[in-house]
Amino acid sequence: MIHDVLINKLNRIDVLGGDVLQFLKNDDIGYKKFGEIYCSCIDYNFIKGWKKHRLVTLNISVPVGKIKFVIFDERAGSISFGKFHEIILDKNNFCRITIPPLLWVAFQGLEQTSSMLLNLIDYKHNQKEAENCDINTFSYNWSK
Amino acid sequence: MIHDVLINKLNRIDVLGGDVLQFLKNDDIGYKKFGEIYCSCIDYNFIKGWKKHRLVTLNISVPVGKIKFVIFDERAGSISFGKFHEIILDKNNFCRITIPPLLWVAFQGLEQTSSMLLNLIDYKHNQKEAENCDINTFSYNWSK
Repeated sequence: MIHDVLINKLNRIDVLGGDVLQFLKNDDIGYKKFGEIYCSCIDYNFIKGWKKHRLVTLNISVPVGKIKFVIFDERAGSISFGKFHEIILDKNNFCRITIPPLLWVAFQGLEQTSSMLLNLIDYKHNQKEAENCDINTFSYNWSK
Repeated sequence: MIHDVLINKLNRIDVLGGDVLQFLKNDDIGYKKFGEIYCSCIDYNFIKGWKKHRLVTLNISVPVGKIKFVIFDERAGSISFGKFHEIILDKNNFCRITIPPLLWVAFQGLEQTSSMLLNLIDYKHNQKEAENCDINTFSYNWSK
């Protein structure tokens, strides 16, 4: 596991006519403050990444489909420096991941229909605050 | 329209590999504070409601499927007292509705597969803060 990344199980509450899916409360572990929340869709096998935030902490869940996240730690002095961590989120592993700044993140759609994540961030989206690099920059094998 | 209900168009940003769907920023109109965010699924033709919150303001969008919302104003002295307002949210009418406390709300799934809403509320969920009544309590014709 990557140091400082949190993974918390979420409840999917069985309700007549349609389930309720928990995501985040203001006293949950991993919540800092509210900047913005948005959804990001991801097509089957497509990969978005790598992206690194300088300031922003991500709080992510996957209410639709199945998505693999890979996190890469390039933080000097981190006890997990140089490590990759992969996690697959879907209905069967319904969790919230909290990812602090300065980690590289990429994700891939694993459902044949489109998948969708929710991301609550502690600062409003600002392209200048984030860095992007090509998916081949780090040696993770996406085809395994 | 019901007095104090806000409807704001949201952007669906065309991104290679999967669109990004805006929902809410901390300086958006209608945002008060962060209590909780959750998803609620709704099966085709099923109706959830009526429900009224005493304290909570709802901020709702529909990232998946198609949902009809009906709002009923029973607030004494309101300029829209006794009125119903209906709105259908889906990909083609991608909006955020802000619904203040003391209004009755019910919603119906209109997509043959399940639909899903996001709801950001300014206080954590607390069943005691809300009131529920039977769908037949108010004379709205759901079969039209």
